[in-house]
Amino acid sequence: MKRSAPIVVSTVIILVLGIALIATLLFINNQPAPTRGITPLVQIAQMEADSHRWAVNYPNQYASLVQTAENAQRTAYGGSLPYSKLENDPRLVTLFAGYGFSIEYNEDRGHLNSLTDVREIKRVNEKTAGTCYSCKSSNNPGLWAEMGMAEYDRTLFSELGKHIDQPIGCANCHDAETMALIVTNPALEEALEAQGKDWRTFTRQEMRTVVCANCHVEYYFAGEGAYLTFPWKKGTRVEDISSYYAELEFKDWVHPDSGAAMIKMQHPEYELFTAGSTHYNAGVACADCHMPYTRDGAAKYSSHNVRSPLLDPEPACGACHTDVKYVVERVGIIQDQVWETMDATEEALVAAIETIKTSAEAPGVDQTLLEEARSLHREAQLRWDFIAAENSMGFHNPEEALRILASATDLARQAQLKAFQAAGSPGGQQAALP
Amino acid sequence: MKRSAPIVVSTVIILVLGIALIATLLFINNQPAPTRGITPLVQIAQMEADSHRWAVNYPNQYASLVQTAENAQRTAYGGSLPYSKLENDPRLVTLFAGYGFSIEYNEDRGHLNSLTDVREIKRVNEKTAGTCYSCKSSNNPGLWAEMGMAEYDRTLFSELGKHIDQPIGCANCHDAETMALIVTNPALEEALEAQGKDWRTFTRQEMRTVVCANCHVEYYFAGEGAYLTFPWKKGTRVEDISSYYAELEFKDWVHPDSGAAMIKMQHPEYELFTAGSTHYNAGVACADCHMPYTRDGAAKYSSHNVRSPLLDPEPACGACHTDVKYVVERVGIIQDQVWETMDATEEALVAAIETIKTSAEAPGVDQTLLEEARSLHREAQLRWDFIAAENSMGFHNPEEALRILASATDLARQAQLKAFQAAGSPGGQQAALP
Repeated sequence: MKRSAPIVVSTVIILVLGIALIATLLFINNQPAPTRGITPLVQIAQMEADSHRWAVNYPNQYASLVQTAENAQRTAYGGSLPYSKLENDPRLVTLFAGYGFSIEYNEDRGHLNSLTDVREIKRVNEKTAGTCYSCKSSNNPGLWAEMGMAEYDRTLFSELGKHIDQPIGCANCHDAETMALIVTNPALEEALEAQGKDWRTFTRQEMRTVVCANCHVEYYFAGEGAYLTFPWKKGTRVEDISSYYAELEFKDWVHPDSGAAMIKMQHPEYELFTAGSTHYNAGVACADCHMPYTRDGAAKYSSHNVRSPLLDPEPACGACHTDVKYVVERVGIIQDQVWETMDATEEALVAAIETIKTSAEAPGVDQTLLEEARSLHREAQLRWDFIAAENSMGFHNPEEALRILASATDLARQAQLKAFQAAGSPGGQQAALP
Repeated sequence: MKRSAPIVVSTVIILVLGIALIATLLFINNQPAPTRGITPLVQIAQMEADSHRWAVNYPNQYASLVQTAENAQRTAYGGSLPYSKLENDPRLVTLFAGYGFSIEYNEDRGHLNSLTDVREIKRVNEKTAGTCYSCKSSNNPGLWAEMGMAEYDRTLFSELGKHIDQPIGCANCHDAETMALIVTNPALEEALEAQGKDWRTFTRQEMRTVVCANCHVEYYFAGEGAYLTFPWKKGTRVEDISSYYAELEFKDWVHPDSGAAMIKMQHPEYELFTAGSTHYNAGVACADCHMPYTRDGAAKYSSHNVRSPLLDPEPACGACHTDVKYVVERVGIIQDQVWETMDATEEALVAAIETIKTSAEAPGVDQTLLEEARSLHREAQLRWDFIAAENSMGFHNPEEALRILASATDLARQAQLKAFQAAGSPGGQQAALP
């Protein structure tokens, strides 16, 4: 009997260990399946339009998104107060004469105002295409999946609006299951494909810039169905875009004073920033400055209060720059220089329009030269608008902005010269002009 | 006897300590007097022109200065190989027509070639003023002290040359006793005084930029005596300098084709760099990049091989920037953008000159408008030259360079327009031009 005691002890130990092992395995098995490191409180349906539902899992991100509805603040050259750009700079009325932007052109507000604002804008009328909702709602990913983009775009704005009740939200940039950043706008996917690029191969840091291109890009409506298209086939520099439109003989409208077939550029933030800017080339993404990391207690999250970094430069610039006061001053210096240069471009454009108009009415005007003048007006103004419609007063890429504005002024003055030449003059001046 | 032993030992100790103290005091007294921390091997006379003599005390600085004689290397847009700028860009022959710079205009070489090169240049002739030696020799501080600058300047170049046998050297920037950086060129001292500034109050870091302004500045010869003057009374921005010259009705020459009274700008490196450039505003001095700290064993010294930092970017850029490859690429991108913009300015200037010339020959040309065209030509070209003659292809202040070039192109095209208008035309075009 004495020898059986150790056997009993060993058996008890083995039993206890076995039970502990089974209990552990059962416990692990009962845990919810991890979704790539995130444990959601609620499941969110794919392409869920209502950002309130995502908010349960991501309260900080949502709380900061809500702030975009409220932060009506101006910066030196922008911000999110919806002031009238036309009242601010009446030359724009001349530059956009004959087009909707001469009727109303306001500074845009934060993301959560997108739906309210697009429905109030005077440029929208009964003929407006549904395409105009493309960047205004988190209903879009679902609608695009359901209808296809072609059908979405050819539906009238008034009709499509019945299916839309959400402003920009979570579903515009995130996969609901993994929270990964995704391209949701089919026009962006197609534009990247046309350049031989597949966004699914991009790094997360690249996506932190590319998702902004869902909306912050130049675009046009192709064909009768107003098919949303980014003019990137030849590249995304202003010269590439100009060349693309020229080949297509595309125009947004005809300027009533100059008679030129015009292009309206729209907020090409992505194109200007990625055209070799120092921040982009150094690996900085849009989100690094516009959605800086923020703390809530021990939790770190990307602020979704997307806005000008100048309104709170410490987290935006301070993550990389040690002297935030210095860099903010620097932004101011650069923006002043860009504005001064842009101001001269606008003077030149207005002068070109007036001279073309007067020349066109002159007896015996040379129509060939007049057409050259119109073509120069188009080229000058689309370059100017590439910087004017871009929301950074050049700061997203200062040297590129100034290079483009210098070229725009040159072309505008050449338009004026050609128009002058077209009206003819004594003294053999026509031969002297280059 | 036993008790006297400690007394003997104490006496011996006191004696030994006393002798040691006296010896120490004697030794200290026999050391040469320190000159603010530097112990020179030889005494150097104030304003000593011969840099070889300074070399005994400062062998590393001198050895690196000697390298400026040899480093004939080109960079993308500059360097120290004396290629012909006129062959490189034949438009300059048109822009400088009627002036020495259309005869010969070479890229400059390193400091130690200054005397050889100024004596070989074709622009120098028997009427050339002594003033042209102002930035070419370390004999100057001595000569200015002896003769006074007015007398120096009015002496003929050929006559003054007999007293000059040294290229640029130590005495151009250093006090021989203290080695402190000093302003030696009286024209610089006077220009600073005209702005209410006293260089003796500047910090050492400020002096590491200001001493370069002994030479690397825009200047002109005032009056019959060719008195060396920096046009800084209204400020050092290009608009300030233009306004200064306009008030003085100063001209360097009359352009034979356009008839405009022209200004030739000379290497305004100091003015462009200090006009709010990001490096200057951040406290960086010329010497930080062009004379980077170098090691010779345990000794650290400022390289006196003054040259483009692009030829050895690691010590120049790497002192502040962690990714030197990135910043060098950045310089390239910026310089290409500046060159592209400058190229367009030159096209506009050549066109303006040609149009003014043709218009001036037209019957019944409006002389008032023609004069306005000439004035615009002058203003456009002096702005272009402020960047073209500046030795950094805009990099010393990229946004300012591009701002100025954009303005220059605008003014050149306006000159062309005015000239066209001056020749008259049917159709009432004159009224239409702004």
